[in-house]
Amino acid sequence: MSFPGSVIAPVLTPFDSQLEVDPLRFVALCRVLLDQGVDLAPFGTTSEGPSLSVDERLRLLDALAETGVDMGRVMPGTGCCALPDTVRLSAHAARLGCGAVLMLPPFYYKGVSDDALFASFAAVIERVADPRLKVVLYHFPRHSQTPISLELVDRLRRAFPDTVVGLKDSSGDWDNMRTAIERFPGFHVWSGTERLMLDILRAGGAGVISANANLNGRAMLDLAQGWRGAEAKALQTRLDQFRAAVQGRPLIPALKAMLADWLEDPEWRHVRPPQLLSD
Amino acid sequence: MSFPGSVIAPVLTPFDSQLEVDPLRFVALCRVLLDQGVDLAPFGTTSEGPSLSVDERLRLLDALAETGVDMGRVMPGTGCCALPDTVRLSAHAARLGCGAVLMLPPFYYKGVSDDALFASFAAVIERVADPRLKVVLYHFPRHSQTPISLELVDRLRRAFPDTVVGLKDSSGDWDNMRTAIERFPGFHVWSGTERLMLDILRAGGAGVISANANLNGRAMLDLAQGWRGAEAKALQTRLDQFRAAVQGRPLIPALKAMLADWLEDPEWRHVRPPQLLSD
Repeated sequence: MSFPGSVIAPVLTPFDSQLEVDPLRFVALCRVLLDQGVDLAPFGTTSEGPSLSVDERLRLLDALAETGVDMGRVMPGTGCCALPDTVRLSAHAARLGCGAVLMLPPFYYKGVSDDALFASFAAVIERVADPRLKVVLYHFPRHSQTPISLELVDRLRRAFPDTVVGLKDSSGDWDNMRTAIERFPGFHVWSGTERLMLDILRAGGAGVISANANLNGRAMLDLAQGWRGAEAKALQTRLDQFRAAVQGRPLIPALKAMLADWLEDPEWRHVRPPQLLSD
Repeated sequence: MSFPGSVIAPVLTPFDSQLEVDPLRFVALCRVLLDQGVDLAPFGTTSEGPSLSVDERLRLLDALAETGVDMGRVMPGTGCCALPDTVRLSAHAARLGCGAVLMLPPFYYKGVSDDALFASFAAVIERVADPRLKVVLYHFPRHSQTPISLELVDRLRRAFPDTVVGLKDSSGDWDNMRTAIERFPGFHVWSGTERLMLDILRAGGAGVISANANLNGRAMLDLAQGWRGAEAKALQTRLDQFRAAVQGRPLIPALKAMLADWLEDPEWRHVRPPQLLSD
């Protein structure tokens, strides 16, 4: 990853008509994005990552690595409910030289304490036991319903200073992001929405990991380049206009439909339940 | 399963000190429970089911089947976030002759519609494509944050009348259980808490699938036998007293600690994060 100023796409996952993953289309989209300058966070929320089995994620990641791309620009989602699944995915990503992994907390049991979440992340890190492992904590309370508090971030950073390197904050809560940046020097904080891209770059954050980077990554990279200049607000406005155009529709099917239209490849429309096909 | 009047334990899952699953202890507990007359729902919430990989669940289920027990008395939890995981587990359970499977909806994405959940369950049933598959829908909104509405139950029953045979209602909402029993003749409704055991038996429900059946199953079976008699209320009171004794502590570690003490086998105390060891 290049930061500050990194733009990362939670890569859309292609399925065929039987809803099987499609490594060829996956690699093709990854290469388009990388060529644009967009880094990759496959198996994130927008990627339907939790709807993929561990074996499917490994197969897609291996297919990408086999093409010889710089895996340092890849941050796969590896956080599952089951400890051995998270360990297996994270260890494999570290072996492949991935720049980092994006790790959800175990998200089935609700109302768990920071002690329990600390134990969960610690158990993964200790089992992977690989200095190449770099963890970006994934805070997405809307879906995980398992928030990662800044107190928990602080504890994990102190316990694993060389491993726990960043936070993706998909809460949309600017105060939380700003506080994380100020409180943890050297820590990388990404916003989950490009609505806050100019704000987070000005505050010293790492950049954005945003669904819309699948389709609008170039405009985000323009802001990543130009945020110190006079045109910064205009570049942010362009991002906001794209967001407005997709808002109000279910995000994943909408993005896949747009990609299908853009590539003239209707296969890209397929989604796995509980996502529903776009009209 | 024998219903009405069935008592089903979400079997506690044994881990060794490295937090690896322990098939020998698992089978031993299963046999104790079956001998008591308690049926089995391994890989439920109390079983730390979502904390187990698919391979671990298959290994434990195979170990149980190999002992020659009546798999018709076994209802494993098979609902995962990823469609292929749920299909693989459910298909295997059907092949082994399991009486039913207990199926959570995909529970990562929140705010999904009934249409989306219908599509999720339908996709599993159509892919398993085995008339032996019997599905008990698992409604546990506190943890899944993905409720199964009675409208969804109705649609699934109409679409798959020979497959969708029951509901485990862990909402604690008596009105919802009573309505399900009245609205769907021939449908099996289990309460997730034995607090409502007498109520649900009187209303024509199937029985209980309760955490405490791991330790207090005999008392529940006494009520299952005696609920029409004069001693019914006293038998319910015994269940309530046991519940009061374990309440207020984190349930899974507390039950494992009690089992460890009862069996004089401290290995039973191990839990996987995000569960924390009992003090």
